[in-house]
Amino acid sequence: MVKVGVVGATGYTGVELLRLLAHREDVSVAAVTSRERQGTAVADLFPSLRHHVDLDFEALDSGALHDCEIVFFATPHGVAMETARQLLDSGSRVIDLSADFRLKDIAVWEHWYKTEHRCPDLVAEAVYGLPEINREAIGQARLVAAPGCYPTAILLGYLPLLRAGLVDTTQLVADAKSGVTGAGRKASVDFLMGEVSESIKAYGVHGHRHVPEIRQELSLQSDSAVNVTFIPHLMPMIRGILATLYAPVAVAEGMSVEVLQNLYRDAYRDEPFVDLLPQGQFPATRNVKGANTCQISVNYLADNNRVVVLSAIDNLVKGASGQAVQIMNIMLGIPETTGLDNVALVP
Amino acid sequence: MVKVGVVGATGYTGVELLRLLAHREDVSVAAVTSRERQGTAVADLFPSLRHHVDLDFEALDSGALHDCEIVFFATPHGVAMETARQLLDSGSRVIDLSADFRLKDIAVWEHWYKTEHRCPDLVAEAVYGLPEINREAIGQARLVAAPGCYPTAILLGYLPLLRAGLVDTTQLVADAKSGVTGAGRKASVDFLMGEVSESIKAYGVHGHRHVPEIRQELSLQSDSAVNVTFIPHLMPMIRGILATLYAPVAVAEGMSVEVLQNLYRDAYRDEPFVDLLPQGQFPATRNVKGANTCQISVNYLADNNRVVVLSAIDNLVKGASGQAVQIMNIMLGIPETTGLDNVALVP
Amino acid sequence: MVKVGVVGATGYTGVELLRLLAHREDVSVAAVTSRERQGTAVADLFPSLRHHVDLDFEALDSGALHDCEIVFFATPHGVAMETARQLLDSGSRVIDLSADFRLKDIAVWEHWYKTEHRCPDLVAEAVYGLPEINREAIGQARLVAAPGCYPTAILLGYLPLLRAGLVDTTQLVADAKSGVTGAGRKASVDFLMGEVSESIKAYGVHGHRHVPEIRQELSLQSDSAVNVTFIPHLMPMIRGILATLYAPVAVAEGMSVEVLQNLYRDAYRDEPFVDLLPQGQFPATRNVKGANTCQISVNYLADNNRVVVLSAIDNLVKGASGQAVQIMNIMLGIPETTGLDNVALVP
Amino acid sequence: MVKVGVVGATGYTGVELLRLLAHREDVSVAAVTSRERQGTAVADLFPSLRHHVDLDFEALDSGALHDCEIVFFATPHGVAMETARQLLDSGSRVIDLSADFRLKDIAVWEHWYKTEHRCPDLVAEAVYGLPEINREAIGQARLVAAPGCYPTAILLGYLPLLRAGLVDTTQLVADAKSGVTGAGRKASVDFLMGEVSESIKAYGVHGHRHVPEIRQELSLQSDSAVNVTFIPHLMPMIRGILATLYAPVAVAEGMSVEVLQNLYRDAYRDEPFVDLLPQGQFPATRNVKGANTCQISVNYLADNNRVVVLSAIDNLVKGASGQAVQIMNIMLGIPETTGLDNVALVP
Repeated sequence: MVKVGVVGATGYTGVELLRLLAHREDVSVAAVTSRERQGTAVADLFPSLRHHVDLDFEALDSGALHDCEIVFFATPHGVAMETARQLLDSGSRVIDLSADFRLKDIAVWEHWYKTEHRCPDLVAEAVYGLPEINREAIGQARLVAAPGCYPTAILLGYLPLLRAGLVDTTQLVADAKSGVTGAGRKASVDFLMGEVSESIKAYGVHGHRHVPEIRQELSLQSDSAVNVTFIPHLMPMIRGILATLYAPVAVAEGMSVEVLQNLYRDAYRDEPFVDLLPQGQFPATRNVKGANTCQISVNYLADNNRVVVLSAIDNLVKGASGQAVQIMNIMLGIPETTGLDNVALVP
Repeated sequence: MVKVGVVGATGYTGVELLRLLAHREDVSVAAVTSRERQGTAVADLFPSLRHHVDLDFEALDSGALHDCEIVFFATPHGVAMETARQLLDSGSRVIDLSADFRLKDIAVWEHWYKTEHRCPDLVAEAVYGLPEINREAIGQARLVAAPGCYPTAILLGYLPLLRAGLVDTTQLVADAKSGVTGAGRKASVDFLMGEVSESIKAYGVHGHRHVPEIRQELSLQSDSAVNVTFIPHLMPMIRGILATLYAPVAVAEGMSVEVLQNLYRDAYRDEPFVDLLPQGQFPATRNVKGANTCQISVNYLADNNRVVVLSAIDNLVKGASGQAVQIMNIMLGIPETTGLDNVALVP
Repeated sequence: MVKVGVVGATGYTGVELLRLLAHREDVSVAAVTSRERQGTAVADLFPSLRHHVDLDFEALDSGALHDCEIVFFATPHGVAMETARQLLDSGSRVIDLSADFRLKDIAVWEHWYKTEHRCPDLVAEAVYGLPEINREAIGQARLVAAPGCYPTAILLGYLPLLRAGLVDTTQLVADAKSGVTGAGRKASVDFLMGEVSESIKAYGVHGHRHVPEIRQELSLQSDSAVNVTFIPHLMPMIRGILATLYAPVAVAEGMSVEVLQNLYRDAYRDEPFVDLLPQGQFPATRNVKGANTCQISVNYLADNNRVVVLSAIDNLVKGASGQAVQIMNIMLGIPETTGLDNVALVP
Repeated sequence: MVKVGVVGATGYTGVELLRLLAHREDVSVAAVTSRERQGTAVADLFPSLRHHVDLDFEALDSGALHDCEIVFFATPHGVAMETARQLLDSGSRVIDLSADFRLKDIAVWEHWYKTEHRCPDLVAEAVYGLPEINREAIGQARLVAAPGCYPTAILLGYLPLLRAGLVDTTQLVADAKSGVTGAGRKASVDFLMGEVSESIKAYGVHGHRHVPEIRQELSLQSDSAVNVTFIPHLMPMIRGILATLYAPVAVAEGMSVEVLQNLYRDAYRDEPFVDLLPQGQFPATRNVKGANTCQISVNYLADNNRVVVLSAIDNLVKGASGQAVQIMNIMLGIPETTGLDNVALVP
């Protein structure tokens, strides 16, 4: 039985991690921590976990985490970088769901997160945890930076296209739509139901923290310079991200729907959590609600000589906690789908 | 491996059954039928089931069901009563999620469903499938009538109170609120999002088909005549029922919150799917979304000398398909919680 | 042109007041105040008011209110009682949308609001502002306490029944369902869309601040002692309250649906904002969204010998700001429907 | 008093027209027709119109329309082209909210609507009814084709940019998101709340009927050939369209945020229903809910040398019925804003 710990389990990614880990027979959640909720029973804060999780929140420095083989950080940015080294030194391996170790360029990180980074050397060691890119490195890693929700949907959507060099990588447009849990679980007027329901708006138009992450990883997959216009939108729903990805075709001839479909089929043939839809079917976020699946549809618009990829995930599962469990499975050397084979909750 | 079949799997209770059965290692869904969708792949109608369910819809009379040990009917009323006998005769056991076998009084059934009943003798044989009442009989039954969604929430809420004889059973008020999937998945203006969202209304004020079912079962649990005023409401949400149950105290003295809490604790101590909340906590339907749990809170309002019970279920799980799986487990003599231990999807 | 002011216009009742007053040709909003937003343009906080309201928030003590003929308080409780006297002394008339002047019994008020009341003498002077009860007194008043949202729906629903002495007033059950804007517009985890959407729950089960208000006003309308069990519920929608009101018939004979329908028709014949539905039609909150209407349906359940009244309002209109405008119209001696004849926004 | 008629008032654009016309003192709705609802009171179908609209649905051929000065068609495509000529001949002027007269190229219309057009000569006469383009022609017209909802949002967003020749018109991407009322009010599984809520999906990826309309009108405003990739999305909300419009800058130098903001300010300075937001503010559909406003934000992304325009409307108001009333006002020669100055319903 592998002992794991969760730091900061009072947010949405925290409760989702606990949901996914609750019935693992091979993994035991030994400790959950919270700065603000020490002493509270987890099941009192999240009654959905009654009779499933029998733990109290503890202090981060309580020592409870130190015999955990794996420690998840489900915290805002800035927490993991303060604490990860100590855990790594004591032998734990760390999966950070926050942004602390995602960007390799420290200056860029400090620009976007407006904070001094506390352990640049660990950034160098950290593996970017998208299994579809870095499966092997993840398996060996002590420290994994789980990808952001938008980057997950966008990278999986663009990946085969960029690797194949078929599109103009300077003209990418990623229009993404997210449910409100992407904003976390914190006291705020902006995300009250009275503000968010029955409305949609764009935000972060002039810059979103996921932009440098998307650029960094797309650039690693492309021979050409990558320039992507990314506009996120806040949607009146709880869970789900749909990314609509546009790219002008860059090759003179030979583009067709068959070429694209085959390209994606080959790219994701062995990926357990990427579900390439047949031509004529399109993803809807409801079809991945609660599941670790990324549903993808690739389309060729001949009139416009443009590729349009649709990519749907549950932001809290493949976009966060499910992917973190997938990472854990890889790190532990067990089947990657362990504990992640549940069907999406439809309707 | 137990082979099971599902009749009418194109509705919400059908897809929910398939979700719950998809990963059973001891049960295999051998056939799903649909009058209108013969030849369609199940996963084409419900893309959430892609790579989980690899079956096509077949005709009801295709013979595919005849070697199924258990056959579920997830159909509108009127279908099971036409077909059940043949299946029973050929050795299958039947779990009917529709209303065909719930009411013991044929005249009452025919009054409410405005149809002649085709097999009154099977009604006599059928067991009303609320495990918390009829567990033993279910285990022996060939034919089980799974309870309606409202009756499940209301019966579990009132049961201990009526058995104990503590309240005036002629003054019961059951105010129930349901998500829209209770109305099924059929072409209709009334349940368009544009009609239902951002609104609540009462319906069936002068009579709802679940009234005779509630009365029948409550009467069986009470020494006194039972009269319950039942008003259902349509809510702008997908899943969930909350029943708010009122009852005036009928005993002269000795009523207290402790008496009530102990009564309910004793009643449900060994029930795996009834979760009695501690005093001061109240159910919310989100906490049972996707789970087979009925969360109950019992309250004593001393000012009014009245008991108020709150009872929350997911109408598609404990109110339909989850309960049907629970029934199946009992019929098969395997642990009742098999395949039903998933955590509710929160948020 | 009548000059009016709004204190605390940063909440939902504030912006609703401004919406309703924006195009009045006989009334001019001269000042809006906010403790936290001084200097901010109203239209920057509420972009729906761009080109409709050209004012900045001012400090409460800026003097801007002192030449307002009418001042509305759209504040949390505790503000109006600190400031009303000064405004009254300077000649303004005050309409308080908060709870400060609703309860005549100061001890009861202090019990429920856990604060010492600062001006009991003004409580004695204040008129409870339900026009359907107190129209004449409102017309003469300097200080009007606009009713709470739940009390409005419940009082209008029960009123004719209690006045006629037809029901057992010790056995009233008021089951009410409210949209989330009833909780106001303040930073909070509890009312995030991720918490509230796709769920319903009861709250205030053991006591809600509107209970003493409901009891006070119902008692004034009844010859008998009144005992009402009131359970409010939080619904996943922005606006709207539906109250389902139960009452056992207390008269030995002669009760019928005609008696009830006639009783309500007579009671509300001349009320411009109470819309009694014909038998067989039932209110839905969508039908009053944005309108100052209370839709009512009265039903006789002969089986149970019980009356069930359904009463629907928009909590922000007839339940708050629309009613406040109605009160203002009465105070000004102009037609009561002025500025309040807009049609509900359906769908 | 101008007499007007509404054909097909049982859908969402119909009830919205009636809402907007209910309290006009200069216009009287003399007749509403419906094939399926003849004899039904309008207020029975739409209880929000009780005491506002006192009409029954009549047959289209009842003659009731023939003394109407203006007749609105709020029908599916194919109806207006059968009936318009007769009305025009008898002296009425026609505003068609359907697609029958929007496309000037009959062959293109017949390709997209899969029907033979019945009156090509009227197509030639019809004026495309976007006031911001064709105000004068509308004023003179007998027959006006009110624009589609998506085209309205997209045209108003792109117009100044294309007229100024600042962007590469062969690389336009219009990513649009619509509430469910865009699909109309008809019996359908696809738009049930259980299907649509808590999900987003793209549709019409390989062709939507609004594409030729968008191309036709954008081409008329541009010196260059126009190629626009248009992907519509179905959103879990009742009303609202947000269009996110992308365009690569085509000029070598001099592009800046000031240039853009001035361009749009000049273009829309005198437009009463186009609200250009200041830099740093972004539209949300809630801010135009129920109002005839199009809120626009124009953004320059220097990193990508790309313009991003955000354009928000209420699909039933500026995208349909409000715009139809605006058209009527222009045709009648009265102030364009008459009856359209209501504030959006926020929250």
